[in-house]
Amino acid sequence: MPELPIIDVRSDTVTHPTRAMREAMLNAEVGDDVYGDDPTVHRLERLAADLLGKEAALFVPTGNFGNQLALFTHCGRGDEVILGDDCHIVWHETGGAAVIAGVQLRTIESDKGVIRAEEVKKRIRDGSDIHWPKTGLICLENAHSNGRVIPLSAMADVAAVARLHGVPVHLDGARVFNAAVHLGCEVREITQYADSVMCCLSKGLAAPVGSILAGTHEFIAKARRNRKLLGGGMRQVGVLAAPGILALTEMVERLPEDHARAQRLAERLAALPGLDVDRSDVHINMVWFDLAPEVDTAKLMATLAAAGIRANPPEDGRMRLVTHWQIDDAALERLITAFATALG
Amino acid sequence: MPELPIIDVRSDTVTHPTRAMREAMLNAEVGDDVYGDDPTVHRLERLAADLLGKEAALFVPTGNFGNQLALFTHCGRGDEVILGDDCHIVWHETGGAAVIAGVQLRTIESDKGVIRAEEVKKRIRDGSDIHWPKTGLICLENAHSNGRVIPLSAMADVAAVARLHGVPVHLDGARVFNAAVHLGCEVREITQYADSVMCCLSKGLAAPVGSILAGTHEFIAKARRNRKLLGGGMRQVGVLAAPGILALTEMVERLPEDHARAQRLAERLAALPGLDVDRSDVHINMVWFDLAPEVDTAKLMATLAAAGIRANPPEDGRMRLVTHWQIDDAALERLITAFATALG
Amino acid sequence: MPELPIIDVRSDTVTHPTRAMREAMLNAEVGDDVYGDDPTVHRLERLAADLLGKEAALFVPTGNFGNQLALFTHCGRGDEVILGDDCHIVWHETGGAAVIAGVQLRTIESDKGVIRAEEVKKRIRDGSDIHWPKTGLICLENAHSNGRVIPLSAMADVAAVARLHGVPVHLDGARVFNAAVHLGCEVREITQYADSVMCCLSKGLAAPVGSILAGTHEFIAKARRNRKLLGGGMRQVGVLAAPGILALTEMVERLPEDHARAQRLAERLAALPGLDVDRSDVHINMVWFDLAPEVDTAKLMATLAAAGIRANPPEDGRMRLVTHWQIDDAALERLITAFATALG
Amino acid sequence: MPELPIIDVRSDTVTHPTRAMREAMLNAEVGDDVYGDDPTVHRLERLAADLLGKEAALFVPTGNFGNQLALFTHCGRGDEVILGDDCHIVWHETGGAAVIAGVQLRTIESDKGVIRAEEVKKRIRDGSDIHWPKTGLICLENAHSNGRVIPLSAMADVAAVARLHGVPVHLDGARVFNAAVHLGCEVREITQYADSVMCCLSKGLAAPVGSILAGTHEFIAKARRNRKLLGGGMRQVGVLAAPGILALTEMVERLPEDHARAQRLAERLAALPGLDVDRSDVHINMVWFDLAPEVDTAKLMATLAAAGIRANPPEDGRMRLVTHWQIDDAALERLITAFATALG
Repeated sequence: MPELPIIDVRSDTVTHPTRAMREAMLNAEVGDDVYGDDPTVHRLERLAADLLGKEAALFVPTGNFGNQLALFTHCGRGDEVILGDDCHIVWHETGGAAVIAGVQLRTIESDKGVIRAEEVKKRIRDGSDIHWPKTGLICLENAHSNGRVIPLSAMADVAAVARLHGVPVHLDGARVFNAAVHLGCEVREITQYADSVMCCLSKGLAAPVGSILAGTHEFIAKARRNRKLLGGGMRQVGVLAAPGILALTEMVERLPEDHARAQRLAERLAALPGLDVDRSDVHINMVWFDLAPEVDTAKLMATLAAAGIRANPPEDGRMRLVTHWQIDDAALERLITAFATALG
Repeated sequence: MPELPIIDVRSDTVTHPTRAMREAMLNAEVGDDVYGDDPTVHRLERLAADLLGKEAALFVPTGNFGNQLALFTHCGRGDEVILGDDCHIVWHETGGAAVIAGVQLRTIESDKGVIRAEEVKKRIRDGSDIHWPKTGLICLENAHSNGRVIPLSAMADVAAVARLHGVPVHLDGARVFNAAVHLGCEVREITQYADSVMCCLSKGLAAPVGSILAGTHEFIAKARRNRKLLGGGMRQVGVLAAPGILALTEMVERLPEDHARAQRLAERLAALPGLDVDRSDVHINMVWFDLAPEVDTAKLMATLAAAGIRANPPEDGRMRLVTHWQIDDAALERLITAFATALG
Repeated sequence: MPELPIIDVRSDTVTHPTRAMREAMLNAEVGDDVYGDDPTVHRLERLAADLLGKEAALFVPTGNFGNQLALFTHCGRGDEVILGDDCHIVWHETGGAAVIAGVQLRTIESDKGVIRAEEVKKRIRDGSDIHWPKTGLICLENAHSNGRVIPLSAMADVAAVARLHGVPVHLDGARVFNAAVHLGCEVREITQYADSVMCCLSKGLAAPVGSILAGTHEFIAKARRNRKLLGGGMRQVGVLAAPGILALTEMVERLPEDHARAQRLAERLAALPGLDVDRSDVHINMVWFDLAPEVDTAKLMATLAAAGIRANPPEDGRMRLVTHWQIDDAALERLITAFATALG
Repeated sequence: MPELPIIDVRSDTVTHPTRAMREAMLNAEVGDDVYGDDPTVHRLERLAADLLGKEAALFVPTGNFGNQLALFTHCGRGDEVILGDDCHIVWHETGGAAVIAGVQLRTIESDKGVIRAEEVKKRIRDGSDIHWPKTGLICLENAHSNGRVIPLSAMADVAAVARLHGVPVHLDGARVFNAAVHLGCEVREITQYADSVMCCLSKGLAAPVGSILAGTHEFIAKARRNRKLLGGGMRQVGVLAAPGILALTEMVERLPEDHARAQRLAERLAALPGLDVDRSDVHINMVWFDLAPEVDTAKLMATLAAAGIRANPPEDGRMRLVTHWQIDDAALERLITAFATALG
């Protein structure tokens, strides 16, 4: 019996580049991007800026790099950054904000990723008292790394407070295209509420490496210099920009498939014993659920492994599955069957 | 009619040194403390270490300096520091933690200054995942700068969690002697729950300048070097250590007077119209109250000023008065009379 | 007449990936390298570690990133780094050492890239005096970015001083394979004098993007975590590792061609009027020369441009030309002819 | 026989405050300087600004703090600071420049403390190339901590280059009053070549603690906020400002005595066997000399100690003695006699 292909539902960061992307790498026109000579990078940066509704864009090696570069470029040392206490910058960027930008994170308790504008307002400080740091930036995240999408109205409210106080807004839009799919809007309807945006070309969009930071011409010029300082000024990056262009032109349109499969997965898992799935939380390509205490986790993980499925084990009884372009209907069925077997 | 002396109830930071302190400066034996030659500094550091129940102590120019030095000495760059979201380090130290120590503040919503041990526990991270900063320190503050004292049991609970995970605890004890008075215990019963302690010799203890950082011999040796790096290595500091010794030997014992007057002030103000005083919050030498919307704040401040009283105006309808050694019974009566006049 | 291909002699950073490299990208087996799942990255890191004679290696997005990561990983904040005053870290890394690692650069006047061991020795400080920073690292650079190769004996002398004082040595080996060609030795005969090495897969080795940091297992484990903090943890990096493997397996062996052409270029240019070429300085693929004051620089640059040649204009009368795999004999002749025309 | 008083010639940092200074502390009018309420601090800052020829001045706890505060306030992260390789900021400030200001030190080989304007000019970088840090500051030091005074013409030359390129100049004037005595000019003739100046009230001027940072109103306003961030915002600092005022009004005029005694000391020591004194280097209150190899250093130090003299032992055969207000003629004779005894 032929071996079945591995099904990897740990994250959408595991996505392989598509065949078209690999061919784009093969054929990419390149140049030395530190000299500003790479035409494919220019095309990608122009395309991304337009899609994100910003004047200019910059290719960066990772989403983490793009977020930290935004903090570093917006803020002075000792400035305060207001953001939700469950966001990626707080949780998953290794404390970089204090090392690189030298900024103080001022967190707000989030309601499933949403921070309320009046809570933001209460924390804004103008630096007029020498005891206070100055608020240098407000960060939003949409879609949130918890899989939920923030309503446009919540973003608009925070943006209004920010503008009133002259504080810029940065959007961690690692999965902003997923957010747009869920909201049924153009990406720029989301990004209009931010002065700068980071979006990933990898993850659901499947480019092998790379993210985009976008903003005004002036901001991006500063960020370009700071990217060099932080060691992110690469050379023949056209080989990465070429699949990045396909991520934006060919992969965005298929994201609804991933969302639909996530919905289907949630529905089917909800029917199984021992799983508590809050289907109202499935906004994009992520399904979260709680395992009942009686579920034998070790057996579950062993069953999944035996079925060729790579999944992250539950943390504190909570588990996440992520769909992406390599999870087709057949894979979905194999996944559901494996769960049914383990729990049945 | 002779002019009445000014009554300054803005803070206990405004306290003047006593006559005895000034004479101690006049007569202090001094030496070059960078060479380790100042005998008065040695005496102060030994005395402070003993009172605080630590192996060693170091004189620093300010409380802010002492807290930042503790963060810098305990933590590596990018470490995370867990602390209450209303504490002094977050609110009133100008964002220094990110600039100097390069650490990420991870705040917990505090209940009037108290953070719960289980919330601390949930935030401790061991750095085993490369996405996570490592928890480098937990900070407590007692008495809290909001004027309340944290129960010993709450400190013990946090310390137990910290020790279980091998994370050190720093106590911002700017007013730890006030806390001990309120708790009716020795200071070292409080400081036993912390690996390092900062306490101020100024504020209620009336020394003109200076604070103490205390901890193990090893920690203080590192902190001594770091104090130099941060520009805090002063020379003939005996002139400040001498009043500092009096702060610890003569002024601690009179703190109960300040607390009693704060209680009296709270009681008397509570009887006035338009003031909402939560007397259960008066733990040390601070009285906080809310002004009813109908109170004419401008008139209140003008009345106080005319009576020779310096007070900080209310912020968001909330006002604070602070007692200290220069507020005697007569001053307290003048203060209460002025409020009664303004609100009557 | 068909247009002639552009000849780009500005630097070897302009090199395009070879056809084989592009095909390697097309076919690379990939995985999520943050999860440690990319087999091609594993192969590259193992290969690089072996070639460089170190226990372990790490892929990083740029040489600049690799150098800064080495400083950050070796040193504590405020440590001092001893290095030549003309090296790349001082000149061309945008001041990053103070921002990221927080280290103080302590420079030594170099003799064409060589720093003398006794000068290094005089600057080593052990931190025993609290006025002094502690020497945390010594950096060497070979081949130097000025195009010269440092003799093994000079490296051995510095390494001996470093080991005597327990200070680690980092080698900026952006072009260490060129250095080995010039010295006629194995790369590991050079890298034996360093505790960590950074080498570029791009530049003369023609990979589109990427460099390697190598050292002990312990050092690389720390560097891996720090790479994440600095935003350099990329995902399906196999697409870059695949050409990187070819850089090390197929391109190293042809570097002597570039060196030979550089020698030939130096010899031929030396015969032209108005050019002062120090042929003894041509160690690798770089030819430097001075232009006589009477040379019409604008005409020279125009002539080169008209001949399809991209060269950096002279700075302070000094000009550099760089050979690489895309400069074949025909290109070399076109280049020499253009110079002869302009100066003739 | 009564014990003779100790003679301390290790440094002028060992100076005790005068009786008048102690009485000034006893009687100083004070206030909370963080609130801006200390009248004595105001008087000192006004007096210092006037003497230094600057718009405004700020009291800081140490000279080291003042220098680092200047770097932090003038520069952005990653800026480059040009200065002599033997200056105090490089040698004796524990690497703070990289930790606090995050700046890269770019050193110039100094000729006994003098850096040449054309060397400064060669190192200025405007940040137009993204590989380059931007020059954010040039630092001079006068009198130099090596005891020599920099000629006004040398300062003027550097200042001219700095102004041409729009780069500010900071003067480490820890002993700038000594420099003025040597040059026979007003202090402001020296400080005119700098945008900011740090001068010490301690050292030869004998105040127990404290230094001054002076500059424009705008610069000092920023520095005041940054002083708070760095933990240098002290409270009733009038007790230190009062002796600081005497340092500037009563002690400056007696500095020539210290210089004359240093000259006499140099002359007398030069007559002793085994000492090589370069009398042309004695500009202020410091005498440096080399010990001949045959001198028994242990015996010399023992003889000095037995005579009640505290001196730093020679480093690499070189020794320094420093005169100050506590070294009168009798002390000088005891010192010379002790040397004569040890070497005779």
